Amino acid sequence: MKLLRIGAPGEEVPAVQDEDGRTFALSTVTDDIDGAFLAGGGVTRVRRALAEGWLPAIEPGGRRIGAPIARPGKVVCIGLNYRDHAEETGAPVPERPVVFMKDPSTVVGPDDGVLIPRGSVKTDWEVELAVVIGRTARYLTDPAGAAECIAGYAISNDVSEREFQLEYSGQWDLGKSCETFNPLGPWLVTPDEVGDPQALGLRLDVNGVRRQDGNTKNMVFEVAFLIHYLSRYMVLNPGDVINTGTPAGVALGLVDTPYLRAGDTVELSIDRLGAQRQILSNA
Amino acid sequence: MKLLRIGAPGEEVPAVQDEDGRTFALSTVTDDIDGAFLAGGGVTRVRRALAEGWLPAIEPGGRRIGAPIARPGKVVCIGLNYRDHAEETGAPVPERPVVFMKDPSTVVGPDDGVLIPRGSVKTDWEVELAVVIGRTARYLTDPAGAAECIAGYAISNDVSEREFQLEYSGQWDLGKSCETFNPLGPWLVTPDEVGDPQALGLRLDVNGVRRQDGNTKNMVFEVAFLIHYLSRYMVLNPGDVINTGTPAGVALGLVDTPYLRAGDTVELSIDRLGAQRQILSNA
Repeated sequence: MKLLRIGAPGEEVPAVQDEDGRTFALSTVTDDIDGAFLAGGGVTRVRRALAEGWLPAIEPGGRRIGAPIARPGKVVCIGLNYRDHAEETGAPVPERPVVFMKDPSTVVGPDDGVLIPRGSVKTDWEVELAVVIGRTARYLTDPAGAAECIAGYAISNDVSEREFQLEYSGQWDLGKSCETFNPLGPWLVTPDEVGDPQALGLRLDVNGVRRQDGNTKNMVFEVAFLIHYLSRYMVLNPGDVINTGTPAGVALGLVDTPYLRAGDTVELSIDRLGAQRQILSNA
Repeated sequence: MKLLRIGAPGEEVPAVQDEDGRTFALSTVTDDIDGAFLAGGGVTRVRRALAEGWLPAIEPGGRRIGAPIARPGKVVCIGLNYRDHAEETGAPVPERPVVFMKDPSTVVGPDDGVLIPRGSVKTDWEVELAVVIGRTARYLTDPAGAAECIAGYAISNDVSEREFQLEYSGQWDLGKSCETFNPLGPWLVTPDEVGDPQALGLRLDVNGVRRQDGNTKNMVFEVAFLIHYLSRYMVLNPGDVINTGTPAGVALGLVDTPYLRAGDTVELSIDRLGAQRQILSNA
């Protein structure tokens, strides 16, 4: 099952796409797809409504798709979580997850324009598997308990300004939190449709040239481990997003590959999670 | 004018305290004190209602005080922003603000219990001046534009677990984002009642022993500069909180001073912003 939000920014309405690709309005089931919806058994209600066949079909046509989750409470990111990406950035493979955060207001739709911050010369891309939390995770006793806390998965572009991230201080959040820096979606895909989250190909092209071509099987710390780990230090709430790291192929790691400029097109895809397409412009 | 929220966690109702210390219910003016209230001219409406004299007086008595702002969109923190604190931690005084983030769900009431995370042996305190944003700040042209973006000020305890913060990776957010790690309040005090934000004494006692005794005049980067600086890299939205750094006197910097343990009492105060009191217990 694929949950999505359709409409202009701030006016999105919830919808669901079934396994045959048909789209149905969810306004009779919920006002929005957010933490409260996920915490309150919303996914089960949608599944039942779909099975009962009374949801009104809609035709999204050319309408904008928003991020599939409204107002995430936090966006937690894992750094250097693919061996090849750690190597390309000259960093050692970490012994523990490297945890930082993005401003949750950076989350935008999967095909929304991405803004190059004023003064930026190092705006970079990062295709990532995003995990959306569906049930509170607090001091989980082991990684096996993580599965029931996952509402689903989505594509995330963890856009990063490398000068702000790496050269202004030792803390990365500044270069991760610029306006529009987290395209998310198009869908929140439920775990039953995704299968093994550690067997998904991830790809990212810039202006039609393949730059990243990885697979989640190469994560240093797997999804279940990450949720277990994070739950020992913070409370993961329904609607929170975890960006689980990016494979090799970012501009930072590619000699002679330019950073993003106005007019560039970035396209991302992950197996079973759909595709994103963003055009860059100056803020 | 002092805005506050009274009641059990998740059930707080908004209130205002006037200059004579009288408290009035705000439920006829707003459902809550949050970003939408601040963005929509809520403070002006409260001021007018107070002047017109029709708000119902209430007696808070022994009722719990919540954080004075509901659901902050983000909590941005500034590290090493007092010269003496940078020195005590062995870090150089930074040339640019060190910017990191806390999970916004760590925000609790000023007198709520603080939990020592499981496995923690280095839970530490940090009294800070918190700034609450009242109007969107995006690419401000200079620090002079910051004043109109400030809704008000509050006391913040930027509780920090030093092992999680400093020893597990180079990124600090993990040790800043544990459950209950951001007592805030008791009040959101409007700028007209605070006066110069760079002339406020800050104090923190542990079990009755004074540990921190600083003044905001010793900030490396002042409030207006910080808002201007941050607005060049991220969008500050109404309801966002900025923790502006802590003066010297944290356990990390005090040789032979123990970290916090269950049963400890922490008391904080800042001139014109009131006082907090937390009792520690194990998570």
